[in-house]
This record gives sequence, structure tokens and C-alpha cells, in this order.
Amino acid sequence: MTRYKLVIEYDGSPFVGWQRQSNGMSVQGEVERALKELVGMPVRVFGAGRTDSGVHALGQVAHCDIYNDIGCETVRDALNHFLRKVPISIISTESVEDDYHARFTALRRYYLYRILNRRPPPAFDRNKVWWIPNILDVESMHEAAQNLTGYHDFTSFRAKACQANSPLRTLDKLDVGRYGNEIHIKASAQSFLHHQVRNLVGTLVMVGSSKMSVAEIKAVLSARDRSAAGPTAPPDGLYLVKVDYP
Amino acid sequence: MTRYKLVIEYDGSPFVGWQRQSNGMSVQGEVERALKELVGMPVRVFGAGRTDSGVHALGQVAHCDIYNDIGCETVRDALNHFLRKVPISIISTESVEDDYHARFTALRRYYLYRILNRRPPPAFDRNKVWWIPNILDVESMHEAAQNLTGYHDFTSFRAKACQANSPLRTLDKLDVGRYGNEIHIKASAQSFLHHQVRNLVGTLVMVGSSKMSVAEIKAVLSARDRSAAGPTAPPDGLYLVKVDYP
Repeated sequence: MTRYKLVIEYDGSPFVGWQRQSNGMSVQGEVERALKELVGMPVRVFGAGRTDSGVHALGQVAHCDIYNDIGCETVRDALNHFLRKVPISIISTESVEDDYHARFTALRRYYLYRILNRRPPPAFDRNKVWWIPNILDVESMHEAAQNLTGYHDFTSFRAKACQANSPLRTLDKLDVGRYGNEIHIKASAQSFLHHQVRNLVGTLVMVGSSKMSVAEIKAVLSARDRSAAGPTAPPDGLYLVKVDYP
Repeated sequence: MTRYKLVIEYDGSPFVGWQRQSNGMSVQGEVERALKELVGMPVRVFGAGRTDSGVHALGQVAHCDIYNDIGCETVRDALNHFLRKVPISIISTESVEDDYHARFTALRRYYLYRILNRRPPPAFDRNKVWWIPNILDVESMHEAAQNLTGYHDFTSFRAKACQANSPLRTLDKLDVGRYGNEIHIKASAQSFLHHQVRNLVGTLVMVGSSKMSVAEIKAVLSARDRSAAGPTAPPDGLYLVKVDYP
């Protein structure tokens, strides 16, 4: 048996999310289908982040165990062959130790949120960015974001359906910058609560459009009340970029 | 009457090309439909470049005459409203002199060709790049390209169906560079022959994959024979980026 680490890129638009579900096509389900076509038996795949419906990945990480003796590059190329009709691409594969676990041994997850901030709508990337036609104040958004990094109770930014035992998380980085017509919000932490990045983005956009002041963001955090923060940003702009391991 | 200059972005994948045709949806046809919805009468649109089916634009330029008195920003926003179901976006509008002509007064056209040059296929941008899994020698491609700039007879790189009177053109720039996993080929000239950029790209890819030497490219040009050059690159990677005017 060999344990493989897979780095996976996907366009989340047509999927119900990473996780296998009864109501539609999932990324996990498609990768497991491809693995079954490759090895001839069911293979379970474990992902580092359970991205929601419509959320994308540039570098999702997953692991699986294969009993057949197949080289890493062959696994990658064969899976890509079986995935050719869906927007999923296996970027790399490597064999890892048996105690490696894509979800439980992850040290840090990196997310990117893309806002297209210009008056004309996007012709490209229609499900790949959040289009906001009114120009946002990026400096205020970045300043507000710096009040949210560190170890906090993130109840205000957590989905009501979140199943995590604790709302306490350490947010390592939350940077907001403008790149031409796009605003990029970069967030990293060992782990995130359900909808945490999208709720942070939705709240920062309120700051950027002068519906909330930079000072108010501290009160939102200390309120520990979901209704104190802004709305959940759409999944379209969110990308799981990378996951670090020891 | 006011003559408007329109800068237009479009994802060419679903279109038969810029030009109105009987066999499917064209970019010109859709912009003309939106204009008719806006002003209530037929309006003809003239484009700077007649991009082929599947070719994209970041900055196609077109002009049209409108008899109603409508502000530039209103024209842009209203057209984008009527174009919301197709991947076309009006980036900007401005009123121009009556002797302005998007096609005939253009000084220079800029094209970009994107190659995704990595082993794994694209999950994103499947119709927006030419995916070439084998790693190309970009330095050789750029060196070969420098033999093609200047004033030449481009018969070897011209589609057989090309309707231009002369195969003589001045190619101002043809640069090849690597940007991470992508190779970008940037071409600019006052005007191009039919399929010229795609035929140049197809030939440079032969150089990059060692099927043609840098020295041979000169012989290809002087052969004045389409069959001496490489194949026509797919439309997917081609973008009309910008058009200059006096």
C-alpha cells in the first residue's frame, strides 16, 4: 500500500462542494470516481479543506491509499485522463508516510478572495470573482483587517451551521490589496471556521463602502454575535490556494 | 448624431467570431442587438479587428452612431445591462469626431497569445489558453521570433482564405516570454493578415519543441509558401488586447 498526497486545482462552479453529497456532483466524488477507474476498486479520498459549493481551489490537498504499485507521475496523468470532462486537474502527486493525513496534519491553510472592483461587469471569470461596481476604499479595508488577526473568538464570523467545537481560532494573516481592477484578500490560519473567510470578506466590504468604520470592526469581533458582522460574501471569489505540512 | 467609440471585452468561446454571420451568435450581432434595445432602432457597429470564432478580446474597439442624446456612461451601463446574459462587457465609451473609424483609422493592434505550458491540464481557462504539456524552449522561440519582425512578405503565415490585397506587412513586435506556467507571445502591428498571429504561434511552437531550428525560420519566411510554416494555433489562446488611434 502506498499513501499518495494529491495537489488539486478545480473550478468550483459546477460542484456542490468538495465533499461527496447526495444532491449533486462533488470534487471528492469525481476524484474518487477517477481513482476507481484507475485501480479497479473503491478508494477513499481525504481533503484538507471542505470547500463549499462554488468555491474554487488552486492547491487543495488530499490523500488516498492505493494498493496497486503505480508511479506518482502515472497516477497524476491517469487521473487527469479520467477527469478530462470535469474542471478538476491533479497538479502533482507524491508518495508520503503512512501517518500523513491531508486534514489532520495540515499546519496552515491559505485562501485568496478575488473582488472585481470596476464599473463594467466581467466578460471573463463570471463565476470566479465577486463583481462590485462601486469603488471600494482598500486602505480602510486593510486597516480594519489588521484588527482581526491573532487569537480571537470568531463567533461573529462563523456560520450558524458551523460544527467546530470551539469558535477560537488564530488568524495569522488578513491582507487586502488592489491589483489593477481586482482587490485581493489573502487569509491564512491553521484552520478556519465554516464561512469564516466569506464572512470576514463580507464585513470588510462594508468597511470599504463606508457602511462600517474601521473602529467598529473591533466591536463586531467582541460582540460574538453573527448578526453584528456583515453578510456572507458569495463563494465565486474564494480560492483555497495552498496547504502547508510539516 | 454622436459617434461613440466602444472598448469591448469578450470571452470568444460561444461566438462564431466578431462578425455577424448567419450560422450563429456573433459579438457584433450581440452588441448591435443591445444597441437596438437601447435606442429603439437598428444601429450598425464597426470593429477594429474581425476576430475569428473562439478568439477573445480584452480591448476590442468599435464605433457606432447614435441619434438619441445619451451620455457616455449611460450608454456603457445600459449596453452592459442588455448584454448581461452573454460574455461581453463594454469597458468604456467615449464620444469621438465624425471622421473617427474604428477599423480604418487604427494605428496599431496588439495581440496576446497564452500557452499553458505544464504537464497537468487546466481546470480553469479551458477555452482561454492553448495547453501544451511538453515544456517548450522559450528562449529559442523568442530568438526565432526576432527574425520575423519588420517589413516582410508574410505569405507563409497567411490563411489561404485571406482577402487582403497584399501579403506585405510590418510586424512591429513579436516577443515570447515565460510567466510561471504560462508562455505569453505578444504581437503588435498596424494590421495583420488572416490567421497571421495564430500561424506565427504555431510555427514558434515547432521551434520551442525542437521540430524546427531558429535558423530555419528565415527560410520559412522567404519561402512565401503557407505549407513551409507550422500549423495554425487554436483560437483559444488568442486575445485582441488593445488598439491604438491617433
